Amino acid sequence: VGVFGFAITYHISNHIEKGSATIKVFDKAGHILESLKNDGTHPLHSREYCISGRVKVVGSARDLYDECDLVVLAVPGQGLREVVRENGTHFPENVVLLSLIKSLEKGTGYRMSQIVAEELPANLDYSYVQLSGGMFAEDILKSYPLGASIACKEIEVAKKLSREIFSHRIHIFPTTDVAGVEYAGALKNIVAILGGICNGLGYSIGSETFLISQAAREIESFAISRGASSETFSMDSPAWGNDLWMTCFGNSRNRSFGQLVGQGMEPGKALEKMIAENRLVEGYYTLQTFHNLVKDDLEQYPMISTLHEIVYGSESPTSGIDSIMKKL
Amino acid sequence: VGVFGFAITYHISNHIEKGSATIKVFDKAGHILESLKNDGTHPLHSREYCISGRVKVVGSARDLYDECDLVVLAVPGQGLREVVRENGTHFPENVVLLSLIKSLEKGTGYRMSQIVAEELPANLDYSYVQLSGGMFAEDILKSYPLGASIACKEIEVAKKLSREIFSHRIHIFPTTDVAGVEYAGALKNIVAILGGICNGLGYSIGSETFLISQAAREIESFAISRGASSETFSMDSPAWGNDLWMTCFGNSRNRSFGQLVGQGMEPGKALEKMIAENRLVEGYYTLQTFHNLVKDDLEQYPMISTLHEIVYGSESPTSGIDSIMKKL
Repeated sequence: VGVFGFAITYHISNHIEKGSATIKVFDKAGHILESLKNDGTHPLHSREYCISGRVKVVGSARDLYDECDLVVLAVPGQGLREVVRENGTHFPENVVLLSLIKSLEKGTGYRMSQIVAEELPANLDYSYVQLSGGMFAEDILKSYPLGASIACKEIEVAKKLSREIFSHRIHIFPTTDVAGVEYAGALKNIVAILGGICNGLGYSIGSETFLISQAAREIESFAISRGASSETFSMDSPAWGNDLWMTCFGNSRNRSFGQLVGQGMEPGKALEKMIAENRLVEGYYTLQTFHNLVKDDLEQYPMISTLHEIVYGSESPTSGIDSIMKKL
Repeated sequence: VGVFGFAITYHISNHIEKGSATIKVFDKAGHILESLKNDGTHPLHSREYCISGRVKVVGSARDLYDECDLVVLAVPGQGLREVVRENGTHFPENVVLLSLIKSLEKGTGYRMSQIVAEELPANLDYSYVQLSGGMFAEDILKSYPLGASIACKEIEVAKKLSREIFSHRIHIFPTTDVAGVEYAGALKNIVAILGGICNGLGYSIGSETFLISQAAREIESFAISRGASSETFSMDSPAWGNDLWMTCFGNSRNRSFGQLVGQGMEPGKALEKMIAENRLVEGYYTLQTFHNLVKDDLEQYPMISTLHEIVYGSESPTSGIDSIMKKL
């Protein structure tokens, strides 16, 4: 479990009644597994957050799946295909898969649920659930008030999970719109880059909120064209309005990258700088993935197209934003 | 003209073709009038922004209305009734009134357009236009990219104004939803107080964006119950999504007031402190006005009701937010 998976494990294990279920965790990184085994803490979180006594740490991924109802997928998006391929044959019949991953696969542009569908044995019955909202791992550990969307084609599964594993400090919005919640979680990062560019150019917060809200509409219309529901893309949807604005104004790597570009740094150099600081700019890659997905309809996405021209092409931030204002 | 009225005058006078119209301004404050007359600058703005040569400064309000097509209303909301009462009889037939005011009248809860309708001579034909968006006065002077909604029952009037008096740097969304745009501009300030409280309590940005987005939904449902359109309350509406998030995260007096309350300061003391710093907390008064408007349906507005209990009653911020999380 990574930092986010650990936080969710901590929340669930504190919330569900003791003895009502067995929670097992595994991590293939030896030092994380050791720390979890030794004292129930995670090396990347404060030692005050401890899961021992309530959670069983297992020594291999296969040990997770005996008498198992729920598997939480908390791996990097680009690694999911391999994980499902390696583990899927061990998943029990009627398993519920709860994905915490906000990502689209590079190259294919696949959502995580599409990868799972492709890689699981064809005869396995399962329910896919996507969790997504504006929640940093630490906020969950601290029990701050938060919201999240939970999407599952079988709405009763989503509702059951929200009742059983989350406390009232994480308010859960159940929905059947899996595709919408997945697109929302992955694509918000692109918008945060545009906001950062606007800020880096020295424009004020009113410019930033205007451009963010307009670019968000392009993402929404893309997702709807792929079958998402407009409700998922409303302002009060945790997977969208909440997560989008948190990403745009929180301590966001995507915004920082945009700020550097807005300040005049060449995008490749800005990315190198972020990488050197060990700060992954997911939106940078998602922007390319999105661009591939819509390459035949670019004129329907004038803002994101212009953003792509700024980040991957030769458009300057100033003239890019001005051209956006003229195109709107 | 105040700081905002001056900025709009500057924008319009720079944008419209020279000689195509006469723009007149007046201010009843002697020192502002003198400054405008002397060198076309406003005492509260940088002297680089000058309207001389393009704008005629007149010595009394009545001098404004000869051969006049458009009157811009840029006075404090609580003073509008008196201004219209004193000046309305001099307005020419078929005048267009463009209001820049974001406010509800204390006591009555009236929107500005309702005050105008009540105070203008009954036989005067006029069009009422409401401008509202996420724009600080200085951003307009600096020609930053911005967005605004323009509402008028006669959509052609709104469209004509957006073509003729605004440059492409202020992207205008015309709509017929006058009531919605008025409610949006006035009521967003309430939500910013809640966001500030959340921040003052030490919760993270994800908590803040979650509570803001949920409280915003209560305002939206109130406005819709009063005839506003849901489009006006979408995220990409400049009068709502844009202005709301700018107010919540910009240099906002409402948020600052909320932060003080969240940090444990008694609300009356927090207000005194803000007043002593000459920072008007509009949302404080609007919260009371809103509470009066919905006092028979309080259970439909659990978040704003709880906020009212925190600010005007005896609820503590911590237990107030917790009770919101349980009620959601």
